[in-house]
Amino acid sequence: MELQSALSELLPDPEQVSVGETIRDHHGQDLSYVRKGLPDVVVFARSKEDVSRVLAFADSHRLPVTPCGVRTSLEGHVIPVEGGVSLDLTQMNQILEIRPRDFLVRVQPGVTRMQLNKALKPYGLQFPLDPGADATLGGMAATNASGTTAVRYGVMRSQVLDLEVVLANGEIIRTGGLSLKSSAGYHLTGLFVGSEGTLCVITELTLRVYAIPETTVAVRAVFPHLSAAGDAAFDMMNSGIVIGRIELVDEFTMDAVNRAKGTSYDLRPTLFLEFHGSDAAVQADLAIAREVCNDSGCVDFIFETETEARNQLWDARHDAALAVIQTAPQKKMKVTDVCVPLSELSQAIRAARAIIDAHGIYGAILGHVGDGNYHVIFMVNPEDAKEMRVAEEVNRQIVRYALERGGTCTGEHGVGLGKIAYLAEEHADTLPYMKALKKLFDPNGILNPGKLFKRF
Amino acid sequence: MELQSALSELLPDPEQVSVGETIRDHHGQDLSYVRKGLPDVVVFARSKEDVSRVLAFADSHRLPVTPCGVRTSLEGHVIPVEGGVSLDLTQMNQILEIRPRDFLVRVQPGVTRMQLNKALKPYGLQFPLDPGADATLGGMAATNASGTTAVRYGVMRSQVLDLEVVLANGEIIRTGGLSLKSSAGYHLTGLFVGSEGTLCVITELTLRVYAIPETTVAVRAVFPHLSAAGDAAFDMMNSGIVIGRIELVDEFTMDAVNRAKGTSYDLRPTLFLEFHGSDAAVQADLAIAREVCNDSGCVDFIFETETEARNQLWDARHDAALAVIQTAPQKKMKVTDVCVPLSELSQAIRAARAIIDAHGIYGAILGHVGDGNYHVIFMVNPEDAKEMRVAEEVNRQIVRYALERGGTCTGEHGVGLGKIAYLAEEHADTLPYMKALKKLFDPNGILNPGKLFKRF
Repeated sequence: MELQSALSELLPDPEQVSVGETIRDHHGQDLSYVRKGLPDVVVFARSKEDVSRVLAFADSHRLPVTPCGVRTSLEGHVIPVEGGVSLDLTQMNQILEIRPRDFLVRVQPGVTRMQLNKALKPYGLQFPLDPGADATLGGMAATNASGTTAVRYGVMRSQVLDLEVVLANGEIIRTGGLSLKSSAGYHLTGLFVGSEGTLCVITELTLRVYAIPETTVAVRAVFPHLSAAGDAAFDMMNSGIVIGRIELVDEFTMDAVNRAKGTSYDLRPTLFLEFHGSDAAVQADLAIAREVCNDSGCVDFIFETETEARNQLWDARHDAALAVIQTAPQKKMKVTDVCVPLSELSQAIRAARAIIDAHGIYGAILGHVGDGNYHVIFMVNPEDAKEMRVAEEVNRQIVRYALERGGTCTGEHGVGLGKIAYLAEEHADTLPYMKALKKLFDPNGILNPGKLFKRF
Repeated sequence: MELQSALSELLPDPEQVSVGETIRDHHGQDLSYVRKGLPDVVVFARSKEDVSRVLAFADSHRLPVTPCGVRTSLEGHVIPVEGGVSLDLTQMNQILEIRPRDFLVRVQPGVTRMQLNKALKPYGLQFPLDPGADATLGGMAATNASGTTAVRYGVMRSQVLDLEVVLANGEIIRTGGLSLKSSAGYHLTGLFVGSEGTLCVITELTLRVYAIPETTVAVRAVFPHLSAAGDAAFDMMNSGIVIGRIELVDEFTMDAVNRAKGTSYDLRPTLFLEFHGSDAAVQADLAIAREVCNDSGCVDFIFETETEARNQLWDARHDAALAVIQTAPQKKMKVTDVCVPLSELSQAIRAARAIIDAHGIYGAILGHVGDGNYHVIFMVNPEDAKEMRVAEEVNRQIVRYALERGGTCTGEHGVGLGKIAYLAEEHADTLPYMKALKKLFDPNGILNPGKLFKRF
């Protein structure tokens, strides 16, 4: 109660501070298997000044602060494992400026990607990154998210030109500018992107946006086996055509989709593709893609150009995670997120399947084939210690396989709570310097404590 | 002599250490107007162990170390202004591994981009970044270089997946991995890229490479005036076609080219374009580009598909800087490097022309129109204090104009010695943290002292 009133005094509106059980409970969990950790209090920030005052207070009182958006994170990033303040930024959801002739927007961190795309559409513009969930842009920057379009547009770190952030001591700073490139000094913008709320709280982002292509074509290409799909993917990447998305969905996932949606898709490895550009260019690229797929023994090649039919075709891919969740609705989702060198992907997916089978559990596999990033989704009961142990063992073996080949434990979901040990293994060289950076920007360790590393 | 023998003892071969006057003199200058600063000794590193031993020695003796490649930098980055060691990395020029199916290469820092492209060609691959000079890849990473293809492939920071670096204390660490994306912890790779030799010495790079497109077409499009060219550039960017390069050359530069090469190009603002992809896609994009150019009053639209003719067409752009140098061969080059929001570019170039004219000097303008980055090249005599003052005043006004519009003082050349004051102005918020980072990684300030900031 004391904390609640102390925080309320810092903010314009007492409604911005809540200790209600339901709200605290909501803010104690994300989309993942990670068991909840309740905050003592939830603060709804409405301005950078709110954030600044809360952090300055927290810093002087050594009070943990865990920033969050719509909490679609998959590794427990937003769970306040040490209690304290859950700093909710969803009310900072204004699109501050659209600069169509600069291909830029300025947004508050609580704006979601779909909200932004809706606002951009009248300008013929889009923010193409698509991690699946309708995440906030602040959250996407915090984890360096990407998703199905990274093969064409790159990851979140490549989209952020400028950040306004509040540091642990309450100081508000800007890190970048409005030009599309810069070589002016150390790249603090890129350091803060992907820092998972442990170095600063993002209060504003300047992002690149892109022209909506004249034509977009979606393709579903079915293959007799995994390596045929993998070969086709490589040959397409190597052909010099412009690929908008290239996703691999395995037969187990297709089965989950059929069961969830009542569809009857082929139970075989399937590539979901998207091509975009000028109409003639897309037709040309589509012809090459079809040829490449056929050369790899593709058994079915379906394409759609009209928006609705195209969306329907992609539904199977878009709803895949949801479909897998529906195989065990009473459980929670655990998702691996390794990324391997491109040439290793088919083999890595086969190895993952063998690991899953050896442990007798159910797992669906989805891959961003253009990046070497794939996910195994399994449904777990966080209260069942044995089930959690098996799931973690499967994850551990999949991560180890990736690390042995120069890959990473996380392509896009971030470290959070779930990959602390793997980060230490993957970046043994730089971990001491990551901890030194943490100490530099957050000497009292109030920002999202317990994430990325346990101690620093 | 004492220093020479101390360093020689650290290295396998006494030939690796030189105090010869000619060699020291070479290592006291770069391509730019900056007056030379002689090193006491030049060390030619041949391995990471060499670098490590030299740095450990230098760190314990507080001896300045200025790393360098082929010294094509344009702001004095490689000039050892505080004496000490010029650490020459050009003998570390091995291409260590080409991984065609991963679209990756591993190289030593002294490999130049043309050397790499020659080795990649048999694989149908390319490293597309083109800053003009045949710079070393280590140097390009150190300044976050880019050039004419950034509009398509991004800047150097987006190409580097992994670095092996030696820290000031001699410690050798790896920062990244072989996967195309990662969200594993703080992005040290991106922090070291662009750090201009002030945080570490790069001893190995893992870089993305790309399929050579099936077809490439080069275009020269001549416009009646600057804003027509600017409008055409924007409309092309907005059309959703894939642009490989899009460069603006002003009439003054075309004049210098004509004089240097005996050509008779139109003395009007000219866009040099490149389109690439599958043959049909390129033909389609080319048709759209022509239409867009015509709509903006283009008076001439010449395109070439065959390699030789294409290169010839691009000669005027490629050799533009050289042509400007030939207008005053006894002088040295000073180049501005601001980058502004895209919509501001035409106006910024007009303003730059007015600033140049108001000061009665000769300046040629070239622009990377897809990025908002443009250069004014003027020839100066570094010994002529008045001429240097005028040139700096012109630069100052051009930078001020860019900063007032959210731009940057340097789009791709870096800060070096020449933009220390502008960096402080542009990044007043983050400068204290840049200095703190410098202190963290190089507490004794031995690495490239005097660059980026005077003191930290």
